[in-house]
Order: sequence, then structure tokens, then C-alpha cells
Amino acid sequence: MTNETNTVKEMMENIGQAARQASYVLAHSSTQLKNAALAAIATELEQQRVSLKHANQEDIERGRANGLSEALLDRLTLNDKAIDTMIEGVKQIITLPDPIGSISDLNYRPEGFRVGKMRVPLGVVGIIYESRPNVTIDAAALCLKSGNATILRGGSEAISSNQAIAECIRIGLAKVGLPPEAVQVVKTTDRAAVGELVRLSRYVDVIIPRGGKGLIERITEEARVPVIKHLDGICHVYIDDFADKAKAIAVAYNAKTQRYGTCNTMETLLVAQTMADKVLPELVSRYREAGVELRGCKRTQALITDIKPAVAEDWDTEYLAPILAIRIVDGLDQAIQHIRNHSSQHTDSIITENWTHAQRFLAEVDSSSVMVNASTRLADGFVYGLGAEIGISTDKFHARGPVGLEGLTSQKYIVLGDGHIRS
Amino acid sequence: MTNETNTVKEMMENIGQAARQASYVLAHSSTQLKNAALAAIATELEQQRVSLKHANQEDIERGRANGLSEALLDRLTLNDKAIDTMIEGVKQIITLPDPIGSISDLNYRPEGFRVGKMRVPLGVVGIIYESRPNVTIDAAALCLKSGNATILRGGSEAISSNQAIAECIRIGLAKVGLPPEAVQVVKTTDRAAVGELVRLSRYVDVIIPRGGKGLIERITEEARVPVIKHLDGICHVYIDDFADKAKAIAVAYNAKTQRYGTCNTMETLLVAQTMADKVLPELVSRYREAGVELRGCKRTQALITDIKPAVAEDWDTEYLAPILAIRIVDGLDQAIQHIRNHSSQHTDSIITENWTHAQRFLAEVDSSSVMVNASTRLADGFVYGLGAEIGISTDKFHARGPVGLEGLTSQKYIVLGDGHIRS
Repeated sequence: MTNETNTVKEMMENIGQAARQASYVLAHSSTQLKNAALAAIATELEQQRVSLKHANQEDIERGRANGLSEALLDRLTLNDKAIDTMIEGVKQIITLPDPIGSISDLNYRPEGFRVGKMRVPLGVVGIIYESRPNVTIDAAALCLKSGNATILRGGSEAISSNQAIAECIRIGLAKVGLPPEAVQVVKTTDRAAVGELVRLSRYVDVIIPRGGKGLIERITEEARVPVIKHLDGICHVYIDDFADKAKAIAVAYNAKTQRYGTCNTMETLLVAQTMADKVLPELVSRYREAGVELRGCKRTQALITDIKPAVAEDWDTEYLAPILAIRIVDGLDQAIQHIRNHSSQHTDSIITENWTHAQRFLAEVDSSSVMVNASTRLADGFVYGLGAEIGISTDKFHARGPVGLEGLTSQKYIVLGDGHIRS
Repeated sequence: MTNETNTVKEMMENIGQAARQASYVLAHSSTQLKNAALAAIATELEQQRVSLKHANQEDIERGRANGLSEALLDRLTLNDKAIDTMIEGVKQIITLPDPIGSISDLNYRPEGFRVGKMRVPLGVVGIIYESRPNVTIDAAALCLKSGNATILRGGSEAISSNQAIAECIRIGLAKVGLPPEAVQVVKTTDRAAVGELVRLSRYVDVIIPRGGKGLIERITEEARVPVIKHLDGICHVYIDDFADKAKAIAVAYNAKTQRYGTCNTMETLLVAQTMADKVLPELVSRYREAGVELRGCKRTQALITDIKPAVAEDWDTEYLAPILAIRIVDGLDQAIQHIRNHSSQHTDSIITENWTHAQRFLAEVDSSSVMVNASTRLADGFVYGLGAEIGISTDKFHARGPVGLEGLTSQKYIVLGDGHIRS
């Protein structure tokens, strides 16, 4: 082991240990205190606008010198509007109910003692993300409200912005007397730090990667700590034999065109054979008007002129772009089969007026969000009323779908006795 | 890659793929059908007593020839009583409520669509265990009831018994028309099969190891699939300044002596300084009568004659034996500190009549079961009313504490609209 990796290892151990200690304090801090810290952080962001923008300018200039694309530079930029959004986000988290300490299912057992479940923080959450500096504050605020200590590791492109935001958080925590180690931003840009962080199982309870598929796959491969994963969003809308034509067209159009680059955007449209000639001509003309490139299966090609053929790869591609694959299927069974084979289990929707088909789709499609007569674009923590989300989990384990405050908690058993023993 | 590992890899892939297919069927099988399968399996176990015992005899003879200890041979033995217990276990699981399909928190959003959560199986559960053949049936029955397909990999010592039990399960499933691949027992004793199984993230949703610490640590290190872990049980009872003397003595005695080899047995007794001379003399004499070896901190040594000194290692040891470490602490704060440093976060209990001390212990001790005035031995799925447990999780992620049917499930979001789109 070289001296340098030794240093990173030691540094991450120290960060982990400090986070664990801070997590003990946070775990039983009152809602009032946690909200006061969030309010102090919001005030600090407001007052440090100038230094935040100054730090961000450093990142932008370095990025430009390093040849970052305009799109990346755009994601990196912290202007007044972006700072407003960050502050609003923190204030909104203050208004959310605190999940910690709530006791459920507390019932007497026949022997006379009570058993129930108490909601508790996970402990220490490690967030690994790429270029957007707003993740620093969004993630820290959600973790703080749910009583977790946080270790944040952002992309090297945003290092100055992240440090400046971290400073606001540190001051806010200190103002209300919470340990500043409750939120730590890793200062090194050494990639070895990520490798260490995801293996710190003694001190870190969960890793949440936010970024592209490459980042998430690398972390999953290396991690020894549980990971809340968000992989692809290959989402489907299936227009059933018994679909209402108007709803079908409205939903299928919205699911594709409302926004192209999001994970809950439809990538494949499935249409029951009997509905194809009723909905596809109008949909195709609307998609084309919006500039969406269409790729169709053989049956679609027979129905629609000038449509590019869909190849095998299309059914497994998350375009994140104005491209849509269309497949005409025999009916519900083939639609479910297609979704099982190709969905990334993120969000899938059926358009139908048939009760039994709707029930079967809800029961048999195994995705984090399964919908009836609704656009896949609705799969979102804010839309679902979670208040805010730290990510959308495509895992089945622990949290599934949009992960809000509750996804950052766990339940422990509590047993209340009166000298009860086991006989 | 040698030909042999290639074969194991292929075999495990095939098992995984078949389990995934079977899981689709199980996921939406009715409670009635799953219960009918369990009843048919119970009947089969009853009718195949002779062949079960015969197969078990092969394992016993092989084990004896290989020099297995009497304790291991005892755990391996399937006699009529053990078969009765297996059958009773299956019948009891029939009586448990089916968690699958239950919908909770289904509420209207302001926009007019409804969002809720539906409980669904995890999918495919891999169970890796050591010598007890009864795990084969207990685990398979719990997974079946919760709609999961199961891949079972038992210890090589029990291979014949496990195959015989698997045959009963296979026949039971077939009798009611469920796919026999819903429960598969891995036939090879090649250890490479375990390595493949825990990396089959495409087909396996969770791994549950049941066995010693070595097995669990090895699996955690290798796994790319989430693992429900059960590591040590280093459990504490803390007798607070405000403890009731009679309850303190009853609980502390029971927590150590009711059974020595279980994970929820107390390994360290903490006593507040002010209570030490009130409870320790009587407790010590009762422990000694029961043959428990005592090891004490300096203050304990000053109070109790002839007590062996506890060394640093004692506070971190799961004895699983009639040995107890005793430490006299200043009070609640030092007790919580000790538990944070040394507990395995399995089960810890406070004995107190003081309301605030009880509340603080419940909030500040972060273990899978936290108790007030109750014996740690009560931490158990049956005692808690879960009906049966597939293990006790010492993780915070997903399931914590005794894992019953619900721990083998997840919740997906459902969205019920009427043509709703995102604007």
C-alpha cells in the first residue's frame, strides 16, 4: 500500500468514525432542534450568496478550461435562481413530518408484555454524486431531518461549490449546537476515497449513489455497505384492448413528450392489436409534430408508413431522448411478457377500462411504480406527496420507488415488560 | 476457467432463471393455492417418513465416517420427533395471514389520482445454511407463503436428507399445479455453487445465510445480491439505579441461564453503582449455583469475592456458553456508552422504574430489539407473534430483528388514475 492510499484510507476512517459519533446525537435530537438547524442552514445559504457564487465561478472556470460540455457546465452552475431553489428545498423539508420515534403496532402479547416497532434513522448515509452541487444541500437536509449523519462525496468538477455549501451547513449546525460532523463533505478528489467509503461497513449504514449508470454499477460492484440503487428507467405504457381512446392518446403522448431526459419517461409504447389502428395514426402524427423519432415492430411498420424498424436493442434501451419504440402486441399477456423481459422495473402503466385487466396488470407487473390510466411521468417523490426524494430506487430491497424521509429510516422492535422472562 | 467451474456456473444460472420464471407464477398465486401447496407438502412429509429417515441415515453414517462431532450429528438427525416438528411448522405457516397484495396508504393526491403501496414478494430468495435439514422445509414454507421462489443450498453433511425433503416439496407443489422450480435445492456440494449463487443478481433478489459467523462473513464479502445478515448476539441487560430489585434479579437470571447457546442470551450484565450491592450478591450466588462462570470488572471484583477478572476481550465476546461478564457502571450514560461500544445491536434491555431513563434507553440504544424490564431471551419471532422467523437480522437495512413473512416482502407503489398526465 502506498503512503497516499494509506492517507485516504485513514482520512475516510476518521470521517466515518466522526459521522458515527454524530449520528448518536442526531438519532435522538428533537424535531424542533433539527428544524432549527435546517432554518439556520437556509439563512446561511441566503447570507452567503456572494461566496457561493464566487466558489461556483471557480468550478465553472476550471470546468471550461478542462473542456466540459455546455450541458455539464449548465448543470454545474449556481446562479441566484439555483440558490433560491436550494433554500426553498430546505424550507420545504422543515415542513415535512418527522418520521423518527414514531411507534407502530404496539400490542400486548398473551404473556402480558407489549411488542411494537419504533422508527429510527439508518445511522450514517453516504451519498456519492456527480456534478450537480444542489445534491449537497438536498441530500444533507433530507438526511438531517431523518436523524441521519451524512458523508457527501461530490464530483471533482463541483468541489469548490460543494465546499462552500458545506460551510453553510457546518455553520447552521453549529448555531443550534448540533455536531458539525453530522454533515461532512469529503474534501479530496482522489477516487480512492469512494472505494474506501463504500467499504466502511463499520461506520456507514447505506450508500446512495446519484449519477449515471456507470457510477452506480461501479459502486455496486465495490460496495460492502448496502446500496440504494437507481439504475435505468426503461418505462412502458401499454394501451390495452379495452382502453379509452382519449385517455390512451393523452397519457401515451404525455409519458413520452413531457420531458425527454428523465428516468420516468416512457421509452417503449405497447399497443394491443385491436387498438392499434384506433390510436396509432393520431399518436404518430402528434409524436412526429413534436419531433420524436419513431421505431416500430413489424406490425407497426405495416400500419404506419415511413417508420424506422425497431431492432432487438431498442427494447432494452433507455433513450433519454426524443426517440420512441412502438410494439403492437396480441394483448395483455404478451404485454406483461414484454415488460418482464425488457422493463427496468422502474414504472409501467396500463391504459384500460377493463377491471380484470387493470387488476392483473397491478398484480403481475413487478415494477417500483405500477399505474392504471396514468402517465409514467407521475412517478416522482413530490408528485406522490413524499415532499422530497433522495432518489428513486429500482431495487426491491428496503425502499422501492421514490425514496423520501421514510426510506432513510428503519424500524427496531421495542419490548415493554414488567419483569417478564422467558419460561 | 476450468470446465468444472463452467459447469457449476451454468447450473446455477439455469437454477436462477427457472426460479425467476417460477417467481412470476408464485407472485400472483392466491392464498388458497399457496396454502393448498403447503398442506400437500405436509402430507407428503407425513407419508414419506420412512424414506426421509432412510436418507437421513445415509447422512449420519457418512458424517460418522467423516468424524463429525456428536453435537453436529445430533443437529443433523431427523427422527420422528424432528419430522413431527417440521410438519407442525408447515401447518402453522398455513394459519398465518398472507401479506401479499395488501394495499396500504391508498390516498387521493390533489390532482385526483390515487397513490398507494402494494405488498409484493421480494421475488427469488437464496438460502444458504449449514447442517440442520429442518431449515430446508422451514425456509421453503415461509418463502412459499410469501410468494417467493426459493433456492436452497444446505450443508454437504445433510445432502441426502435435504434432497429427500426437497422431493416432498416438489411433489406437494406439483399436486396443486404450482411450478416445481418454485423451490429448488442445489444438488452439488461444490462450494463454488455458493459463490455463483450470491452473485446471481439478475435472478436472485436476496440471500439469507443461516449459520455461523464464518459463513455469514464469507457470503457478505462475496455477495453482489443484498444479504439479510445475522451476525453475533452480544446482548446486554442494564440494571439501572431505579431498578426494582425483584424484577432485576428475575430478568438478569433468566436472560443468562434460560438457554446458553442462543443469540438472544445476555453475555454482559451492566449494573449501576448504586444497585450493585443490592442485586449482585444474590445474583452471583444464583449464577454460581447454575454453574455460570463469572468475570467481573474492577468494581465487581471489589464487591464479589473470588470472581475472575474480565479482560478487554470479554466485553466483545459472544460466549454462547455459561459464562457472564459483569461490569458496574456509574449510571445510565455509561451503560449506553458501553452498549454502543460493545453491543452487536441485537438485543439490549434496561431494568428500571424510572420513566425518563426508560424513554432514553429506548431512544438512544440502537439495537434490533430494545427492551424495558424484560429478558433478552424474549427476542424471537414466535414470541413476538410473527408466527415463524426465517432469521434475526442484525442489519438496519430492510428488515431488522426477527424476520417473518413481512421481511420477505417489499412494497411497490401503485397509481390509479383516470387518464392523468403530468403538466
